[in-house]
Amino acid sequence: MDPAAAALNASVHFDRRLLRDDVRGSQAQARMLAAVGLITAADAEAIVAGLERVAQEIASGERALDPALEDIHMNVETRLIELIGEAGRRLHTARSRNDQVATDLKLYARRAAVEIVAGIDRARLELCRQARRHAETLLPGYTHLQRAQVVTLGHHLMAYAEMLGRDRGRFADAERRAAESPLGSGALAGTGLPIDRARTAAELSFSAGPTHNSLDAVSDRDFAAEIAFAAALMAVHLSRLGEELVLWSTSEFGFVRLGEGYCSGSSLMPQKRNPDIAELLRGKTGRAIGDLVALLTISKGLTLAYNKDLQETQEPLYDAIETAQLSLAVLPGLIAGLEFDVTRMASAADDPALGATDLAEELVRRGMPFRSAHELIGRLVRRAEERGVTLRELGPEELHTVDPALTPEVMQALDPHRAVAARTLPGGPAPDLVLAEVARLEAELRALGHAP
Amino acid sequence: MDPAAAALNASVHFDRRLLRDDVRGSQAQARMLAAVGLITAADAEAIVAGLERVAQEIASGERALDPALEDIHMNVETRLIELIGEAGRRLHTARSRNDQVATDLKLYARRAAVEIVAGIDRARLELCRQARRHAETLLPGYTHLQRAQVVTLGHHLMAYAEMLGRDRGRFADAERRAAESPLGSGALAGTGLPIDRARTAAELSFSAGPTHNSLDAVSDRDFAAEIAFAAALMAVHLSRLGEELVLWSTSEFGFVRLGEGYCSGSSLMPQKRNPDIAELLRGKTGRAIGDLVALLTISKGLTLAYNKDLQETQEPLYDAIETAQLSLAVLPGLIAGLEFDVTRMASAADDPALGATDLAEELVRRGMPFRSAHELIGRLVRRAEERGVTLRELGPEELHTVDPALTPEVMQALDPHRAVAARTLPGGPAPDLVLAEVARLEAELRALGHAP
Amino acid sequence: MDPAAAALNASVHFDRRLLRDDVRGSQAQARMLAAVGLITAADAEAIVAGLERVAQEIASGERALDPALEDIHMNVETRLIELIGEAGRRLHTARSRNDQVATDLKLYARRAAVEIVAGIDRARLELCRQARRHAETLLPGYTHLQRAQVVTLGHHLMAYAEMLGRDRGRFADAERRAAESPLGSGALAGTGLPIDRARTAAELSFSAGPTHNSLDAVSDRDFAAEIAFAAALMAVHLSRLGEELVLWSTSEFGFVRLGEGYCSGSSLMPQKRNPDIAELLRGKTGRAIGDLVALLTISKGLTLAYNKDLQETQEPLYDAIETAQLSLAVLPGLIAGLEFDVTRMASAADDPALGATDLAEELVRRGMPFRSAHELIGRLVRRAEERGVTLRELGPEELHTVDPALTPEVMQALDPHRAVAARTLPGGPAPDLVLAEVARLEAELRALGHAP
Amino acid sequence: MDPAAAALNASVHFDRRLLRDDVRGSQAQARMLAAVGLITAADAEAIVAGLERVAQEIASGERALDPALEDIHMNVETRLIELIGEAGRRLHTARSRNDQVATDLKLYARRAAVEIVAGIDRARLELCRQARRHAETLLPGYTHLQRAQVVTLGHHLMAYAEMLGRDRGRFADAERRAAESPLGSGALAGTGLPIDRARTAAELSFSAGPTHNSLDAVSDRDFAAEIAFAAALMAVHLSRLGEELVLWSTSEFGFVRLGEGYCSGSSLMPQKRNPDIAELLRGKTGRAIGDLVALLTISKGLTLAYNKDLQETQEPLYDAIETAQLSLAVLPGLIAGLEFDVTRMASAADDPALGATDLAEELVRRGMPFRSAHELIGRLVRRAEERGVTLRELGPEELHTVDPALTPEVMQALDPHRAVAARTLPGGPAPDLVLAEVARLEAELRALGHAP
Repeated sequence: MDPAAAALNASVHFDRRLLRDDVRGSQAQARMLAAVGLITAADAEAIVAGLERVAQEIASGERALDPALEDIHMNVETRLIELIGEAGRRLHTARSRNDQVATDLKLYARRAAVEIVAGIDRARLELCRQARRHAETLLPGYTHLQRAQVVTLGHHLMAYAEMLGRDRGRFADAERRAAESPLGSGALAGTGLPIDRARTAAELSFSAGPTHNSLDAVSDRDFAAEIAFAAALMAVHLSRLGEELVLWSTSEFGFVRLGEGYCSGSSLMPQKRNPDIAELLRGKTGRAIGDLVALLTISKGLTLAYNKDLQETQEPLYDAIETAQLSLAVLPGLIAGLEFDVTRMASAADDPALGATDLAEELVRRGMPFRSAHELIGRLVRRAEERGVTLRELGPEELHTVDPALTPEVMQALDPHRAVAARTLPGGPAPDLVLAEVARLEAELRALGHAP
Repeated sequence: MDPAAAALNASVHFDRRLLRDDVRGSQAQARMLAAVGLITAADAEAIVAGLERVAQEIASGERALDPALEDIHMNVETRLIELIGEAGRRLHTARSRNDQVATDLKLYARRAAVEIVAGIDRARLELCRQARRHAETLLPGYTHLQRAQVVTLGHHLMAYAEMLGRDRGRFADAERRAAESPLGSGALAGTGLPIDRARTAAELSFSAGPTHNSLDAVSDRDFAAEIAFAAALMAVHLSRLGEELVLWSTSEFGFVRLGEGYCSGSSLMPQKRNPDIAELLRGKTGRAIGDLVALLTISKGLTLAYNKDLQETQEPLYDAIETAQLSLAVLPGLIAGLEFDVTRMASAADDPALGATDLAEELVRRGMPFRSAHELIGRLVRRAEERGVTLRELGPEELHTVDPALTPEVMQALDPHRAVAARTLPGGPAPDLVLAEVARLEAELRALGHAP
Repeated sequence: MDPAAAALNASVHFDRRLLRDDVRGSQAQARMLAAVGLITAADAEAIVAGLERVAQEIASGERALDPALEDIHMNVETRLIELIGEAGRRLHTARSRNDQVATDLKLYARRAAVEIVAGIDRARLELCRQARRHAETLLPGYTHLQRAQVVTLGHHLMAYAEMLGRDRGRFADAERRAAESPLGSGALAGTGLPIDRARTAAELSFSAGPTHNSLDAVSDRDFAAEIAFAAALMAVHLSRLGEELVLWSTSEFGFVRLGEGYCSGSSLMPQKRNPDIAELLRGKTGRAIGDLVALLTISKGLTLAYNKDLQETQEPLYDAIETAQLSLAVLPGLIAGLEFDVTRMASAADDPALGATDLAEELVRRGMPFRSAHELIGRLVRRAEERGVTLRELGPEELHTVDPALTPEVMQALDPHRAVAARTLPGGPAPDLVLAEVARLEAELRALGHAP
Repeated sequence: MDPAAAALNASVHFDRRLLRDDVRGSQAQARMLAAVGLITAADAEAIVAGLERVAQEIASGERALDPALEDIHMNVETRLIELIGEAGRRLHTARSRNDQVATDLKLYARRAAVEIVAGIDRARLELCRQARRHAETLLPGYTHLQRAQVVTLGHHLMAYAEMLGRDRGRFADAERRAAESPLGSGALAGTGLPIDRARTAAELSFSAGPTHNSLDAVSDRDFAAEIAFAAALMAVHLSRLGEELVLWSTSEFGFVRLGEGYCSGSSLMPQKRNPDIAELLRGKTGRAIGDLVALLTISKGLTLAYNKDLQETQEPLYDAIETAQLSLAVLPGLIAGLEFDVTRMASAADDPALGATDLAEELVRRGMPFRSAHELIGRLVRRAEERGVTLRELGPEELHTVDPALTPEVMQALDPHRAVAARTLPGGPAPDLVLAEVARLEAELRALGHAP
């Protein structure tokens, strides 16, 4: 090949990640070939052992990968033949690089999805711990980044546990939908040799058995796109968390202090304590969405079956997975290390305007139509603004002038603790509910073996 | 509002799609409010009936939407109050526009997902019909768009049924994961009023009950992104089908003729018969991926809970869904109308080079290691090329010179019918297998009520 | 056509935007055909006048577009023939819909680019006005959203003028690069008729003359992608402005109050004043990037020359342009209406830690290597933190203990006014520099006729 | 830092690409500091020489980069201080890592843009050579991939030269717009030290002088997005070329044979000759668009000035540039090695239906309105189809029956050579025009020093 073409074509610098899965797939293939009589048991044993050694040589760095051999698959097979001779030449029986790559990639992707699910659960566990600690800590809830109503910090943190719970479901679904084994689909058209596809599928934990269509099987990269999507949406969620940590770390908010190990200083401003890790969680979203776009665009308009374009699906898949793993690896420590300034939060939550809705609900509770209560509180807020005082500072007579319904009893709805404690419906911020949600999730994590 | 700001802010031109779901959600809310005693049964009845009338007025065009009322929700409620007075002012009790919009959008999205699933099944049914018809039709299978091995047309068509089957699963998963009701989450912090969230959830067919966290519930648009992803990946699959139909319609391939209703002429070249619909199926991929990117990017870095940016999630969701629906609507007729030129396909499939792999497998069957068989056939192909003949035209002696293993019996592996019929393993192209796959899928579709 | 196919194929609901440009292009074509003798002068006159009338009928709504006629071009031509008969049948001479659409789209896109450039300049002018007003207003400059060094508000605002200035350049470049006329390229292969392409190019203000290759000309949509890119990057810039306005509007920052016309209330929380317009500026980024992705993806892998997929390039182009226009329309009023709370800004800027860098520079000015000064100030900051005081509160002896270099004179570098005023190098925040930059930009805008 | 955080934060594995530009920028800084008297001439000399040595140590691999030192910049400075001591501690005077990184990245990006422009020109030169060789070679031009009208291969190839010409312009514009030097902008707020920004700008070939706003300068990554866009659109163009080469290499088209060095064989099908490089050119589009999306999304919603998220802009920029360079490196050889099968092309071009438009134009030339000619030819084509003959096989009487205008003279328009030769207007496919276009472009390339 022309050198520039070889450079464009090269893949060993990234597909080396498939080493472990390639060897595992080939070992299953060899055992099956012996079981159906296409090779001898002795050949199968030699292949299995030889592959083990090849894997060790490459993984340890003892043997460098040769780019001239194009990819990891040819590197492994070539070395195998060097080591064990003739038997090695029988390994590729009833198999093509097309079904081999599809199998390896699926093994890799499914394995990664399982690891990511565990990583998500570790992060959810830390959220539970902080949420329990702060089940009663008050802070303003925001909409449009304007203070809206008082909530509890535990409730706020558990919102992220919900997002991560959905992310978990998407990774698990992707892994499940990828549970059919492509091995045995050949280059595109299956094989006429009497192999046992169900056997290799089972050995490789493809629980749904062999794929149903060889043309589809060798050109299907849906699983890569689906994992990349799950990773992109999780990155969006983590970008929201990152944004909030950055914001809450400002002098102006001052709600949180990140652990030392998650900040950096400045080369020019010695007083700075920069929330780098929170910013990177936010910034990683770009690459995650970019990887997904790459994966979807690559497959656009490809005819059946395999096309070389599919080689380009590997790097965005690896990047999507590794970015997700890097982000998840940092989360437990980051979350555990958050020191919240409950005093500043409480002070911000004490803004009486945050009780306006609770006040309106109190009036509804006493029979006023909601729209009327809404308008009445609107008048009240304007009055307080004109007077330059808070709602709590308006005297009983003044309240009576605005509307006789505004009795001192009604006005007690402005108390933030009382307001939060009253919102006890499912999904609400009341401390008891937060603790119940934490307990529910921890039980779920324990049942999965992901919590002590 | 400033007119330019109002123009930027306007949403009635697109959120009118939510009319039906908004009314349904409000009716459930009113019934629940009466059930828990927050409004009277009479008020609830008046609201339910009034909403019915509002819906009819707007749907029929009798009443135009007023952009000054900002969105569909305020248009409905304002008109309701005009029609039924005081009772109407009680509808918005224990509800905010934030949980209302989230509920409406989820109702809309889940409904659309169910329709799309049915549309996919209609397309799969037509694929089955054509595949049965062409279970024995031979054509070349391609990799790298080079002729590789002979397959059957039925097998080729069923590859698309596999892709659509996975698409179906993704839409169904998205719909299932969106089965929690946000209604009752309030603006962001739930409500202190004693409503019954489980009741509205049940009435609105949110089978997983109420959402677990109010802050998450009002700002969650995961379901929109997930449906947009399922739509984008389906669009990628349809782009592959579109590409193949365009290609097969060329003078050079000549494998297929699209139905009259799916082509167009040219304003300048009267002889043209352009496969517009196949091209559009391919071209729609761009907008589908674009919609997904929009949805993911919008939510990046948003603090909890609701932010106005989320209004921007509606249009890409609608476009993703409507594009999917338009594409699916055209598929059954397009597929049913395909007239395949089986003669040209057979002629292309008769290229003896397509049997090279079958020949190698025959040698393996007789004990030769695969790599040796591969090399031997390589030498044979080069010999034929040098001689300017096909593999089939090489005489017995010449074959013997290349290698004594190449006996006349072995060379029978080059027969395309025999080659295809031999590939009977699961996922293979043999006619019997194609018929079995068709029967399996049709049974599945019948069980779903999606096939006669 | 099959109805579902017709629905997929329909374009009049979006390509009606081309009416004006289609008529203009056809009038130029008719005049040219007469000039070269392919039609008579009388026919040309009838066509030109007839097209004028068609345009009025359609624009006024007097005549509805007929979707059965597929697109705006056939609607116009068909109506023209109805109105003027035989002469109308001569209009499409030496032209195809392919070069016609390419011409119309380019006319539209270039016109839009010019309007956007003017819109950018209007926004820059308002930035200049606010920047002049606030040339001396101090506020903290942030990195990592941590207070870093004091800057002036005028300087901060002018950063956006810089970004918009680059945006302007990109739109102008896109418009210039689209200055070749595709008209006369025919369906794909030019024409054998003796038309005058230079004449139509000139009449339609295509200053670079006719395109150089007909196959390229009918399939080129680079200009659409380039404008969409310019729009996407501008949207990113506006998202940064939107984010800052949202942030500065919070109770915690309290730096700015948006004009009444640019905020909205809440359906549930009467005290809220939500910065909707700023949020939408931020949220529109998603659709802008999505439009760009759509445009790029559509053209991927298309063979020469025209393919129907290109019809799909229209909607993302329109959306990109209209989103840019909506955003720009709101900017001047939004910027002009910003009321900054200079007291809160000044108070935030008075944080002595913000002077750490200025202090280090003062030491460098007196001969200390920068790295040593950096370390010394680091020690000083830690000392102040341990003592729980600000840098300014450390007494002379204590300073001397840390390092004798920290004389009272040196410590004057902590004064924020002095610090800002000292940074007078090009690009710096000093009030005089801000005024000079404002004057420079206003002069530029005046020279363009975009400022009074 | 926590190890997982350090892993997320690490950048030496990618920012090592900036070594050369970092050293160059620091040398300019040192010389300037001496010129303005902030350091001594001896210190500047020591720094310049020391940096040279550091660069050599790192580039040669003699000294490994230390991830604990975070990035390339600290690695370089730390080693410099080790080597030359005190003087090294003075290098970072009046500079921050923020303006340093911005400067390095711009230097890198501008250098890459210049190299890419040269690479584009090398590809255009090869297109010229093939186009000259095939100025008279006929082939069908296609629209909708249906044969439409005869064109010349030279004309077809030169369409790609047009696309690449626009790509060139975009890279050049990006490079020009990035010609302002950020150096001296400090961390965000400039510096109070008396440095000479114009001097470093000049030494580093920033022809537009220093940037105008420090807050913008340290957070501006527009140049990265702009280059990534130019690269993505070029990738789209190359995907079109790749698609055509794949298509033309099929057995069915058979128009071209790729050079040996640009194809690969199959592990299972010895007869295959796969156009891998053409497929990869097509497949690379995905990653190019993905890189662009990443770059745009990262900057969305970032407050001024520098945020750590910007570190994430580096990898997509590098990938966009390196992908463009890899693709361009392969083009000249790929193009030069194309062997066209002019016989098969000629045979395909001989299809008389391709002359329908020429026939219609001939009728127009003789006075018939175009729409009438179009209809007449439509009738003629249908007649031939019904009869199962080509247009050329219809006898004079039959033609006369269809319409007396169809005289034998008129029917000569069907001759493909005559048809092509007649289309001599600017942008047309006539051989003479192709040669003129080739000459024009070669002259342009010679003037740039990019052609012999």
